[in-house]
Amino acid sequence: MDISIFPLKNFPIINPGESLTEIIVRELKKIDLKNHDILVIAHTIVSKAENQVYNLNEITPSPLAIHIGTIQDKDPRKIEVILRNSKEIVRMNDRVLITSSLHGFVCANSGIDQSNTAGNTVISLPIDPDLSARRIKKAIKENYGLDVAIIITDTFGRPLRVGTVNFAIGVAGINPLEDIRGSYDLFGYELRSTIIARADEVAAAAGIVMGQANEGTPVIIVRGVKYSTNEASARDLIRNQEKDVFR
Amino acid sequence: MDISIFPLKNFPIINPGESLTEIIVRELKKIDLKNHDILVIAHTIVSKAENQVYNLNEITPSPLAIHIGTIQDKDPRKIEVILRNSKEIVRMNDRVLITSSLHGFVCANSGIDQSNTAGNTVISLPIDPDLSARRIKKAIKENYGLDVAIIITDTFGRPLRVGTVNFAIGVAGINPLEDIRGSYDLFGYELRSTIIARADEVAAAAGIVMGQANEGTPVIIVRGVKYSTNEASARDLIRNQEKDVFR
Repeated sequence: MDISIFPLKNFPIINPGESLTEIIVRELKKIDLKNHDILVIAHTIVSKAENQVYNLNEITPSPLAIHIGTIQDKDPRKIEVILRNSKEIVRMNDRVLITSSLHGFVCANSGIDQSNTAGNTVISLPIDPDLSARRIKKAIKENYGLDVAIIITDTFGRPLRVGTVNFAIGVAGINPLEDIRGSYDLFGYELRSTIIARADEVAAAAGIVMGQANEGTPVIIVRGVKYSTNEASARDLIRNQEKDVFR
Repeated sequence: MDISIFPLKNFPIINPGESLTEIIVRELKKIDLKNHDILVIAHTIVSKAENQVYNLNEITPSPLAIHIGTIQDKDPRKIEVILRNSKEIVRMNDRVLITSSLHGFVCANSGIDQSNTAGNTVISLPIDPDLSARRIKKAIKENYGLDVAIIITDTFGRPLRVGTVNFAIGVAGINPLEDIRGSYDLFGYELRSTIIARADEVAAAAGIVMGQANEGTPVIIVRGVKYSTNEASARDLIRNQEKDVFR
């Protein structure tokens, strides 16, 4: 089983409110898309198309946002947007603000991002990344008759390890977890506790090509991955707080 | 930039004490290896070749190992091997034993693994995975005249997220971190805090092909990745404890 990973080249800049599904469907004409391909999509273009863009000039920071902004030497209006998109502050000091996003993803700043955004604006994660993924999957099915999987991603830092990696925050047509418990290894031992985070593996792989800087390749095709197509949510990747010894 | 990922097929089972470098050099004749390819190697075959195999019948558990074994309903001799390969117990309850390995990798059981090991034995991580990687890189250079990168991996669970993913624990010929601070995004914003964990991305990507069960593909070729070749250590991926808000 060989895997190939390649970008949808010269993908246009997405402006707030544009139809991302239409643009993706149009851009896919440039390649020979196949059944079972996985489209990995940077959340930034999904958020922009869905108008999850905040003009900081229109934001009034709360006292909490002002205080955190002072401690961290950051724009309190950006902190305010982060707090509005958080349901919990998980860790905080004078450098980092680790929150649980409204979806439950634990990451820095609830994924609020200044990069790749024009002017004095920030963007948040999509409101329902699974739903965004399902819409794109459906449009591809309708236009090309192909069954593909969609993974919407963001790059997060990680506890214990240095450096950022791309993670799945929304999926359609792929089960983000692959449960191989009950299968046997080379010597006949039953693998007792292995659930593979397939969607995170694919997100990380696509991240190699996606880059973060001005390369303009927010849509990546990953071909050749074996995956389970039963419907699920990227939220299945969120570890239950009670079971997490690091929370 | 397209990436392709494929296994070194029909890789033989490695027995303790065999020369892994010789076997890898021989098996590479089957493919058209290229300059700048990355070989991703499951640590299990490295550990076996380096005799990091413990026969549980020869292990006498300490009182601490017996106690933990009782709490967790696990073989105290296996716990003893874990403790001998740990420099710190980071988290512990009746289900999990999260330790810092002697190298500093924080993971379950210091990477001690019963799977894919014959008989009543367990295997540990390689003593110096970077050194193991450098040896293999050197042998490939001598035999094929090619400059490749080596990443030795293990699958770890993760704080915050469900499911296991493949991580880099030893590298040669590749800087595991790519620092893109100072580069600019599409709108001219300087990316202020982005260090990409390139070796972990590549490890995760190879993990898709490597599988965990009886597929017998412990060596994966990843082709087409841009990476920095300046010498470094996989330990650079370990977050400094003082900077880690989750420790």
